[in-house]
Amino acid sequence: MQVMPEKGAAGGGLREQKKRATRAALAEAAVRLAAEHGVENVTVEAISAAAGVSVRTFFNYFDARDDAFVVIDTDISARVRSTVLHAPAEVPPLDAVRDAIAAELAEAEQQHELWQLHAEVLRAAPHLLVRSLGAHLADETGLAVAIARRLRGGPADVPGTTATDEDARRSLDLYPRLLAAVAGTAVRVAVEHWSADPAERQFADVFQETFASLAAGLPAPPG
Amino acid sequence: MQVMPEKGAAGGGLREQKKRATRAALAEAAVRLAAEHGVENVTVEAISAAAGVSVRTFFNYFDARDDAFVVIDTDISARVRSTVLHAPAEVPPLDAVRDAIAAELAEAEQQHELWQLHAEVLRAAPHLLVRSLGAHLADETGLAVAIARRLRGGPADVPGTTATDEDARRSLDLYPRLLAAVAGTAVRVAVEHWSADPAERQFADVFQETFASLAAGLPAPPG
Repeated sequence: MQVMPEKGAAGGGLREQKKRATRAALAEAAVRLAAEHGVENVTVEAISAAAGVSVRTFFNYFDARDDAFVVIDTDISARVRSTVLHAPAEVPPLDAVRDAIAAELAEAEQQHELWQLHAEVLRAAPHLLVRSLGAHLADETGLAVAIARRLRGGPADVPGTTATDEDARRSLDLYPRLLAAVAGTAVRVAVEHWSADPAERQFADVFQETFASLAAGLPAPPG
Repeated sequence: MQVMPEKGAAGGGLREQKKRATRAALAEAAVRLAAEHGVENVTVEAISAAAGVSVRTFFNYFDARDDAFVVIDTDISARVRSTVLHAPAEVPPLDAVRDAIAAELAEAEQQHELWQLHAEVLRAAPHLLVRSLGAHLADETGLAVAIARRLRGGPADVPGTTATDEDARRSLDLYPRLLAAVAGTAVRVAVEHWSADPAERQFADVFQETFASLAAGLPAPPG
């Protein structure tokens, strides 16, 4: 069963769509310029010009230049969390997570080149890689919190819903932590495996095979 | 079924044991000094003195000062790979990986404080964190190669055994990549979860629960 992403999660109105497109254009411009010239040689002015916006607009989206390099799309995590939290009660947690991520990765084949550039930029700039890893681990924790809330009965009738993130994190059980972390790893492996030969298979096939193996308990494939 | 580690894998003789102990003492001294004074303020002389060996001996084990901070125990990966490769044919791959890692983590409760110090040292030194991540990903690939060889019939009768690592990496299937990466993630999650309250449970219990959840296909825990 495919759960559709809640477009409303990160705001679905036209205004929100335009904001998201502007943010994405700035992040893409930042990565492409950094890949070509090196992070240290890229200015906020150059990023803004490449994205067709003013420097002032840049600072509506990012507090500082380096922020534009850290995460390509911050909205993805919020949408995945929301989709997991709102998936029908009968959907097993692993399937809910798989479907939420699948909806976000629908554009993987188009985004692939940009992701690879982003990875190269981060590898060449350790201080950004560290920040990106921190953001990744925060996403993982956020997803674990969403899974934990879902297990306790969904978003509406959960006492913990209004607790702070810090509280939620401290009280995390093993299972939500594990599912969130393994799902993130499975996405990375699917992207890496598919990237090694993108012409051979569709990304969606590799992704579904990856999660099917997890759901089956990682059995040896039929020889 | 518990598969005993092949002590011979990384050399089991008295001489090898002494070399391993010296290397471990140097790595531990490096991490403790860096945690106290900061990586940049730690000299090879200080590390060697703290480990009770000469500077010349230090350079028998490490090419440069920074190498001592990157990985605490390089032998672990080699032993895990060897154990996976030599586990009895009837042991499922996930179990073989679990047992190989469990044997290496038997000292988790004693090593825990040192691992935490190591993580703090790496967090404070991005260039070392990047190198440590690189080493971690190389370990993951190495384990994937061992799993792939095991699936093709074990170490003796596999044509690929003498192929270079580079060849082996290129030809990796999805499953060995996935199992190696997920196992690494499961270890991280088990350590993190246990570390949050080490007094509550034994590490081995958390570790086994983690791998049991993987083997069962990550089902929701009984509510």
